Amino acid sequence: MLLPATEHTLIKAVQAANAAGQEALFRMITYHLGWEGKGSGPKAVGKRVRSTLLLLTCAAAGGDWSLALPAAASVELLHNFSLIHDDIQDKSEMRRGRRTLWAIHGAAQAINAGDAMFSLAHLSLTGLAQTTDVKKYTEAAKMLSQTSLRLTQGQYLDLAYEDTENIKLDEYWPMVWAKTGVLIRTCTQMGNLVAGIDGRQAKAFTTFGEKLGLAYQVHDDLLGIWGDPAEMGKSAYTDLLSGKKSLPVLYALQKKGEFAKRWVNGGIPESEVAELAQMLEDEGAREYTRNEAERLTSEALKALEAAKPEPETGAALAELAEELGQRRV
Amino acid sequence: MLLPATEHTLIKAVQAANAAGQEALFRMITYHLGWEGKGSGPKAVGKRVRSTLLLLTCAAAGGDWSLALPAAASVELLHNFSLIHDDIQDKSEMRRGRRTLWAIHGAAQAINAGDAMFSLAHLSLTGLAQTTDVKKYTEAAKMLSQTSLRLTQGQYLDLAYEDTENIKLDEYWPMVWAKTGVLIRTCTQMGNLVAGIDGRQAKAFTTFGEKLGLAYQVHDDLLGIWGDPAEMGKSAYTDLLSGKKSLPVLYALQKKGEFAKRWVNGGIPESEVAELAQMLEDEGAREYTRNEAERLTSEALKALEAAKPEPETGAALAELAEELGQRRV
Repeated sequence: MLLPATEHTLIKAVQAANAAGQEALFRMITYHLGWEGKGSGPKAVGKRVRSTLLLLTCAAAGGDWSLALPAAASVELLHNFSLIHDDIQDKSEMRRGRRTLWAIHGAAQAINAGDAMFSLAHLSLTGLAQTTDVKKYTEAAKMLSQTSLRLTQGQYLDLAYEDTENIKLDEYWPMVWAKTGVLIRTCTQMGNLVAGIDGRQAKAFTTFGEKLGLAYQVHDDLLGIWGDPAEMGKSAYTDLLSGKKSLPVLYALQKKGEFAKRWVNGGIPESEVAELAQMLEDEGAREYTRNEAERLTSEALKALEAAKPEPETGAALAELAEELGQRRV
Repeated sequence: MLLPATEHTLIKAVQAANAAGQEALFRMITYHLGWEGKGSGPKAVGKRVRSTLLLLTCAAAGGDWSLALPAAASVELLHNFSLIHDDIQDKSEMRRGRRTLWAIHGAAQAINAGDAMFSLAHLSLTGLAQTTDVKKYTEAAKMLSQTSLRLTQGQYLDLAYEDTENIKLDEYWPMVWAKTGVLIRTCTQMGNLVAGIDGRQAKAFTTFGEKLGLAYQVHDDLLGIWGDPAEMGKSAYTDLLSGKKSLPVLYALQKKGEFAKRWVNGGIPESEVAELAQMLEDEGAREYTRNEAERLTSEALKALEAAKPEPETGAALAELAEELGQRRV
């Protein structure tokens, strides 16, 4: 029920970009969101994790989730704006099994489509002034702007790390915190805000989001090397090929073993990637990363329990956390 | 007095991006804004036209301009975000006599610096909730989001026109209206909002902004071909070299004369550019464009008069309009 409502709100939100003479820009947006073009459908749409988290938190905190829909659409649009620009920056040609916007339309128009999506994220949020009130909207708008600034700070680090040798394991956390964690936490904070809770309960939901955001990213790093290519819509070992300094890589680099000797900044040739992935695993990087994801997921679940959520939506949040942070790979 | 206050507000606003580990991103922002790095200083800062227009409109409408400073910083940041991305999209290596961000740091980090600036624009505006109230802030936030969406729509057309033959003269106006006009109009609307005026007076100030925005762009098109390279900080005939479908070019293409025969999509070789500029002039494109700028400036000034501005700030607005739309070239 949450997902169709989110899609409906998203569709209404992006209509603001549907103007005469702007059909091609509008189609870039609807393509990226998975609704139109080659390969569109549920798999291209994805799970809408962030909006779902926001709406469930609102409901679990005793609020009316339908009032939070403008915020839910907004975080989803913000996330998708960052994906469009990430793909350009990383030169990724595939996402969710489909060609990325820049690969189809060139970088210039894709940068612009991302900027349009960014604008739509802020525009969608203004709907909260109607569903709640101008005070709550103002709070949420501050959250959204601060969050998007943090996103760009995380992206700055991610890009800078690519060109820097000797990134240490503990430099991983500020990067992924800004790049992924903050927005996930913001989802729980916006849920709290619309539900009108504060104090200890709100803090517990926020901690839930905080831990979940990190667990999600750590788990994503596992999938980036050992995930099922068919399920990911990307090639196998994609993060090794692109030279991404993900958690397993940083762990193994710190160990200064065989993997570290073979690692070169900028990515590993396709012919060697399976061998190096095995090396990573042999040196314990896969287990370490899985343990970190599980630890963070457990901490998230503990915080969720402390938040005393409404039973039904609390269970749905717990299930979401298990799914995001602990799927076996 | 307005400009130092704006710079002070801008400096405070961008401090939000000044965090540990983020020094390089922060320096990209302060470099682009003209405060730091090679060639920094008043010329690199530029005229801050949009913030000045916003503050003057607020004062001319009887408001306290100092309360509008968060909005003034916001429109300036939004404008500068769009410049950073424009330079990447157009592959422009120079702006205001300095190397552009992407030329120094590469496209990936420059896209991200633009995104950070975009975030700061929205974040800065939230200050309006303190200087005025949450209702006015909410109105202004809607304006900002809608305006940034329109900016991207204008940019979409601008990029699309580059690759399209047979763009007609009247297709020029929706493009520049979205790309330049809307934000300039928004400055006057935000000035009205903070001053708390509505009805006929507000409408007159808005019309002033609307006409001024178009006059400014038309005049910019003149400068893009016939402007003084030293003053512009760009090479001479820059718009002809880059193949920009500016107003003089579209005018001459429509005439189907010598210029139209020689024009090729994508730009004119440097060896021929002076000759083609002369051809443009001989075919009346320079005069036509100058007349359009003057017509729009006159209409702007007429609207300003109808707005019955406070005498001193009204005179400053009139001077600004004359400067932006009618400088002799």
